[in-house]
Amino acid sequence: MNEGLREDYFSLVHLLEENNRLGGIMGILHWDQEVIMPAGASESRAQQIGALAGVLHEKTIHSEMGKLLDRLPHADENGFTAFEWCNIREARRDFDMATRIPKALVTELAELSSRAHQVWVKARAENKFSNFAPVLKRLLDLKIKWAGHVFPDMQAYDANIDIYERGTTQKDINPVFDKLKAQLIPLIKSIQESGYQPDTGFLSGQFPIEKQEALGRKISEEMGFQFDKGRMDVSVHPFCGGSHPTDVRITTRYRTDNFIESLYAVIHETGHGLYEQGRMQNGRDLPVSEALTMAIHESQSLFWERMIAQGRPFCTRYLPLLAETFPQNFKDVTPERFYEGVNVCQPSLIRVEADEVTYPMHVILRYELERGLFDGSVQVEDLPEIWNAKMKEYLGVEPLTDTLGVLQDTHWSGGAFGYFPSYTLGAIYASQFYRALIQAKPGVEKQVEAGNLAPVRDWLGIQIHQQGRLLSVPALVKQVTGENLNPESFLDYLKNKYRQIYRLN
Amino acid sequence: MNEGLREDYFSLVHLLEENNRLGGIMGILHWDQEVIMPAGASESRAQQIGALAGVLHEKTIHSEMGKLLDRLPHADENGFTAFEWCNIREARRDFDMATRIPKALVTELAELSSRAHQVWVKARAENKFSNFAPVLKRLLDLKIKWAGHVFPDMQAYDANIDIYERGTTQKDINPVFDKLKAQLIPLIKSIQESGYQPDTGFLSGQFPIEKQEALGRKISEEMGFQFDKGRMDVSVHPFCGGSHPTDVRITTRYRTDNFIESLYAVIHETGHGLYEQGRMQNGRDLPVSEALTMAIHESQSLFWERMIAQGRPFCTRYLPLLAETFPQNFKDVTPERFYEGVNVCQPSLIRVEADEVTYPMHVILRYELERGLFDGSVQVEDLPEIWNAKMKEYLGVEPLTDTLGVLQDTHWSGGAFGYFPSYTLGAIYASQFYRALIQAKPGVEKQVEAGNLAPVRDWLGIQIHQQGRLLSVPALVKQVTGENLNPESFLDYLKNKYRQIYRLN
Repeated sequence: MNEGLREDYFSLVHLLEENNRLGGIMGILHWDQEVIMPAGASESRAQQIGALAGVLHEKTIHSEMGKLLDRLPHADENGFTAFEWCNIREARRDFDMATRIPKALVTELAELSSRAHQVWVKARAENKFSNFAPVLKRLLDLKIKWAGHVFPDMQAYDANIDIYERGTTQKDINPVFDKLKAQLIPLIKSIQESGYQPDTGFLSGQFPIEKQEALGRKISEEMGFQFDKGRMDVSVHPFCGGSHPTDVRITTRYRTDNFIESLYAVIHETGHGLYEQGRMQNGRDLPVSEALTMAIHESQSLFWERMIAQGRPFCTRYLPLLAETFPQNFKDVTPERFYEGVNVCQPSLIRVEADEVTYPMHVILRYELERGLFDGSVQVEDLPEIWNAKMKEYLGVEPLTDTLGVLQDTHWSGGAFGYFPSYTLGAIYASQFYRALIQAKPGVEKQVEAGNLAPVRDWLGIQIHQQGRLLSVPALVKQVTGENLNPESFLDYLKNKYRQIYRLN
Repeated sequence: MNEGLREDYFSLVHLLEENNRLGGIMGILHWDQEVIMPAGASESRAQQIGALAGVLHEKTIHSEMGKLLDRLPHADENGFTAFEWCNIREARRDFDMATRIPKALVTELAELSSRAHQVWVKARAENKFSNFAPVLKRLLDLKIKWAGHVFPDMQAYDANIDIYERGTTQKDINPVFDKLKAQLIPLIKSIQESGYQPDTGFLSGQFPIEKQEALGRKISEEMGFQFDKGRMDVSVHPFCGGSHPTDVRITTRYRTDNFIESLYAVIHETGHGLYEQGRMQNGRDLPVSEALTMAIHESQSLFWERMIAQGRPFCTRYLPLLAETFPQNFKDVTPERFYEGVNVCQPSLIRVEADEVTYPMHVILRYELERGLFDGSVQVEDLPEIWNAKMKEYLGVEPLTDTLGVLQDTHWSGGAFGYFPSYTLGAIYASQFYRALIQAKPGVEKQVEAGNLAPVRDWLGIQIHQQGRLLSVPALVKQVTGENLNPESFLDYLKNKYRQIYRLN
């Protein structure tokens, strides 16, 4: 490689590192806003975030960046390592995405998203979808236009999915979701009709917050969360944020009459946090080390929450700790009763409260609606009616208000079409990864039951966390599991587990 | 005024607001680092702060800024309001200060300050001034060079003072400090020799942190701190930070064997916080509304800490609350005993632990050394010897180690020469402001004794907080007090108070 090219690469690295650090600062501003900021600062914080977003945008499209990318290779063929080539590729993608859109469209999208959020909050509070419909329609038009500029060779909905789930299109998702639908609807129905229902009475009671917090911290720590490189706090909605692999911040929320939601939120967010803390040691300020996609991130949180912490070995191991923490509730509870109690399946109206069997149906419903909106087969005005009909068909429940139906999620109000599939793709990948783990380390469930979670964490670290963005999602999944995106292992997992819990033949 | 000029002004406002918001973000990063950041993030945080500082520097010296400032007037004569002219003047000052220094000097100063801090930490831990001397000498040389570039018409030490205390020079300070010295040394001596010493036994004991925190919050709130636009947390060194007048964050620290230090730290930092929360309602993202100088900021914290909270009316008012909070300590304590107990004067080696009578002598010592370093009459190598001799002369105590002497403060290691005078100028201004308040509102001490602190806060708000940077310090002091910087009211205050407490004829 010639010297000039090498120098250009180092100049690029310098710019990317600077942007990454400014991005980390944005992470702190968001965390602070959700966790600790005084209420009166919301207006000034919005302006600070706006100012920093402006700086980041300027830097992403800076002419110096453009010149470097012009000179650097456009394909992996010039003697750059995979690590280096990944940084070039990622920088070019960001640059192209930011520069291909006319400025007027950027501005209108930013303004409309912000306004639409306010409109949605009000429409939701007042249960009036018709007030939200006009801005939603406009957002959709703009996102279709946006797609035409950024990815002119893609279908508009695929381009929107690509932001969150690069390399995955409707062609990949359609057959997978169709298969899930075909098998989950009857499974949910038979669970509903089962004469056996797990006992969950022992999960209600009085649970002091200090005890819940100590319990969550202990389990998070045993999972491997490093509290010297992270924090755990309280926010309205649990999330994992922060500014760097050495500064990863998870949150949960507490209710005194229920501890299990908070505990599983801690475990879920710790799963995200381990991904961030476990990133490769080199290039931590560069795109190459970043988490791959939304679905892969979600696969890590769900891996710990569902495949591990809702599994028998974990329940068996941690029941004594729970009994010690909350003796009045757990004194007569067997591991099997505990396991069944945390794996209840119950169709409900609200996605974020759904269990692992019904959750995919909430996602598929939204995916089908979005697909229809983008291909013109669904009109915005008809969303409430179709929503309710699909809820009835898929889950057997029907919202009486739009607030509990089509208006429940914030995503569309921010123009985030194409985000929902990631949740269920993540659940599928988690089940595939778990199967691969069991095959690679047959004794791992025994180790979990013995309280040794390190083999799980280490395997995920090597297989996924340290891989960064070196591979595409399909290539990574293939490398880890030997197969492509495959709903079968997810369906097998759900069917085996829930047929047994609900005594279905 | 022509239209173009008006447009230029609005463009300038836009740039200034953006910079101000980025500056607010820097405030959050620093607060987070001191209060809440996981220890493992120190390296990544330093890089984030570096990246944001780089952006702020770029924006301060941006060619667009330069062009606007070229076109906008250089003197207050073009029909701009005082508010507008202040923003132009402040922007020009920042631009000039940032652009007049050769880039090589900027870089060397930044790198050396950072390195010097590490060297100082080590030298202080090892009690070896000689290890710190070479970097200190180099820092001094660079700061003299810096002064030659930025303020070529000023003496180098005046230029350094000007960063913190604009418009105040050695010519102003010398006679004031000489007068303090002449009168405080004998006052301290006679206090030392007094047969009467106040009882402070009741200030020792066991004070649970929750009770201390609740007490601090209550008093801070009664002083007028708005907790919906601010926070109170814990840090190693108490400070007041944050990102905006709607996001002001004070800190304190707790010891279980002493509550009074923590409580007075809360009151001190609340004084700073009220200044920030009380800034003018317009232009809150513009220089015009910002706090005036370090000394004026310190005058506000000291006003509340000393003039109010160490005064008899406040002690009388809040003794019952203290007795309720810590009954075992305060059951037999009279207001007079409490007042005397919090006003003990005792020469000591460490500036930050000093009381209001001895504190100025710590400052004057440093000021005289700095002045000597800049005019060449003091050599860096001789600092420890001169330090110790002056300590003996001024306070009658002599440090046995440099760690407890010349190495105790962090300021010089960061190149912050000229900062120390602000502390004592602030104390003098506080006493002048208090005298003005009593004259303007003769009943105010009765109101404080009745628990009504609003008149104090409101008067400071109108007289000082809402004035922003519209006036220079001398002009503001003149407007509020009718006089110039005047050590007499400070000396009168100290002499009256301590002669009485210590029964000095």
